[in-house]
Amino acid sequence: MKPFERVTLIGIGLIGSSLARDIRAHGLAKEIVVSTRSPETLRRAEELGLGDRYTTSAADAARGADLVIVSVPVGASGTVAEQIAPSLKQGAILTDVGSTKASVIAQMTPHVPEGVHFIPGHPIAGTEHSGPDAGFAGLFAGRWCILTPAEGADEQAIESLASFWRTLGSKVDRMTPEHHDKVLAIVSHLPHIIAYNIVGTADDLETVTESEVIQYSASGFRDFTRLAASDPTMWRDVCLHNRDAILEMLARFSEDLAYLQRAIRWGEGDKLFELFARTRAVRRSIIEAGQDVEAADFGRHGLSKKN
Amino acid sequence: MKPFERVTLIGIGLIGSSLARDIRAHGLAKEIVVSTRSPETLRRAEELGLGDRYTTSAADAARGADLVIVSVPVGASGTVAEQIAPSLKQGAILTDVGSTKASVIAQMTPHVPEGVHFIPGHPIAGTEHSGPDAGFAGLFAGRWCILTPAEGADEQAIESLASFWRTLGSKVDRMTPEHHDKVLAIVSHLPHIIAYNIVGTADDLETVTESEVIQYSASGFRDFTRLAASDPTMWRDVCLHNRDAILEMLARFSEDLAYLQRAIRWGEGDKLFELFARTRAVRRSIIEAGQDVEAADFGRHGLSKKN
Repeated sequence: MKPFERVTLIGIGLIGSSLARDIRAHGLAKEIVVSTRSPETLRRAEELGLGDRYTTSAADAARGADLVIVSVPVGASGTVAEQIAPSLKQGAILTDVGSTKASVIAQMTPHVPEGVHFIPGHPIAGTEHSGPDAGFAGLFAGRWCILTPAEGADEQAIESLASFWRTLGSKVDRMTPEHHDKVLAIVSHLPHIIAYNIVGTADDLETVTESEVIQYSASGFRDFTRLAASDPTMWRDVCLHNRDAILEMLARFSEDLAYLQRAIRWGEGDKLFELFARTRAVRRSIIEAGQDVEAADFGRHGLSKKN
Repeated sequence: MKPFERVTLIGIGLIGSSLARDIRAHGLAKEIVVSTRSPETLRRAEELGLGDRYTTSAADAARGADLVIVSVPVGASGTVAEQIAPSLKQGAILTDVGSTKASVIAQMTPHVPEGVHFIPGHPIAGTEHSGPDAGFAGLFAGRWCILTPAEGADEQAIESLASFWRTLGSKVDRMTPEHHDKVLAIVSHLPHIIAYNIVGTADDLETVTESEVIQYSASGFRDFTRLAASDPTMWRDVCLHNRDAILEMLARFSEDLAYLQRAIRWGEGDKLFELFARTRAVRRSIIEAGQDVEAADFGRHGLSKKN
């Protein structure tokens, strides 16, 4: 696709800094402007050479940009929108990468000037690491990016943003913010909350020591610790900003767990077997869809003989 | 260590077949006898060249062996012990690899003849795959093996078995069966049950389609599908045979989850942040202890650009 004249990245963590590297690698911008609130993070971004210009002022960064991508914890979306609103140029595309959509839209939309195309987005990609050093080119390749434009949003702007993501190797999907929030509540938010919770439970036990938990973690527990090592600020905000969908999924999860618990208590092996056999098929489908590696243990044994 | 004259493997799935390969690689037996109930699995083991002799009769297999390793779902331990008891030679070491210990001991001990050294064991290693093709040499390297001998068990036999595991690269620990069962309930059984449960919940939703769950699984959900793809028979048996410890851990987990759920409902961001920040340290400890890889996303990105 034709490069943008100027792309502004507000927030330069895992997602923002991966975008910076990818935009450069694919020649998608003549100029990359990087902005973040923290002077230390900004300095680090500059050391890494992620942009062409750096500023702690979101308003300055957004001025004259053709594409502005907001990559901050979702709780900060409203503040950022308010700061950049006066600098946004007519015809600019404004997007975000937040994990919740209805709340981000509610926070940002009131500030977006007429003539600026606000197309909310969410790339389904990431790792448990955070900060500008954690990003890498190729993070979005093979992954999905969900756009949730308002009804009546400019189709040319949507297509321009979609084609930006496709250039990064992503597949683009479109849905309503409400549906997005339900889908993500089950595929992402619930898994993270459950992972945080189980790691917390294990950490608090009196009968099993912390060193035992760590020593024997290869028997299953360690898988959960990856998600539970994700950025606390980001995930606090997700919980606060997708509350209703998360509470709905948590209720379903707990109901199912109570059923399973009862089957264990009463020794109902057939019920246990039925569930345990059924879930195998889901993983097979994920591997076939190219959304996970086939190698045993996520390929850990190939990485290191000792792990 | 000095090789055993004859090692008999009863059960030739992921663990049994990995043992066969490792025993061969390390020259730990002059003869490896392989036994499994299913003629097809036995044939496959023979095609893979896992042993020197093959039989569907556990009793025949155990005859004259110096070391007998039972690697079957824990619910089958009693039956196997009963079958092999008359063939066990004086001074032989009998061990198992079961994920629960109190139940296996209760099932097997009554059948073990005087003069045979029964040293229950549990290597903390595995993958989500099962069957003789899933095994590989090196599975136990860097992992722990827990032995739970009865009080008064022969120390020389214990040391001989411990040194067998050490030769395979394992670190050996020793604890009571009851403590083992509590430790494994939190580090292994609860994580598997939770993973099975969340995959079941996602599979049952009406508001989110199965193809959406699969498509967007890279946002967290896919991590759980690995554990939930484990062998259903093995895990049914674990649930039935470590019931009390599992129910105790499930109760703790649910209590903690209710607290978290309440914090989400009432928007208590500080409580959420406190937990989410604390759990990061646990992962760091696991990586420092060499029990997981440091690479982001379990190193998936290194394995395949598309995954």
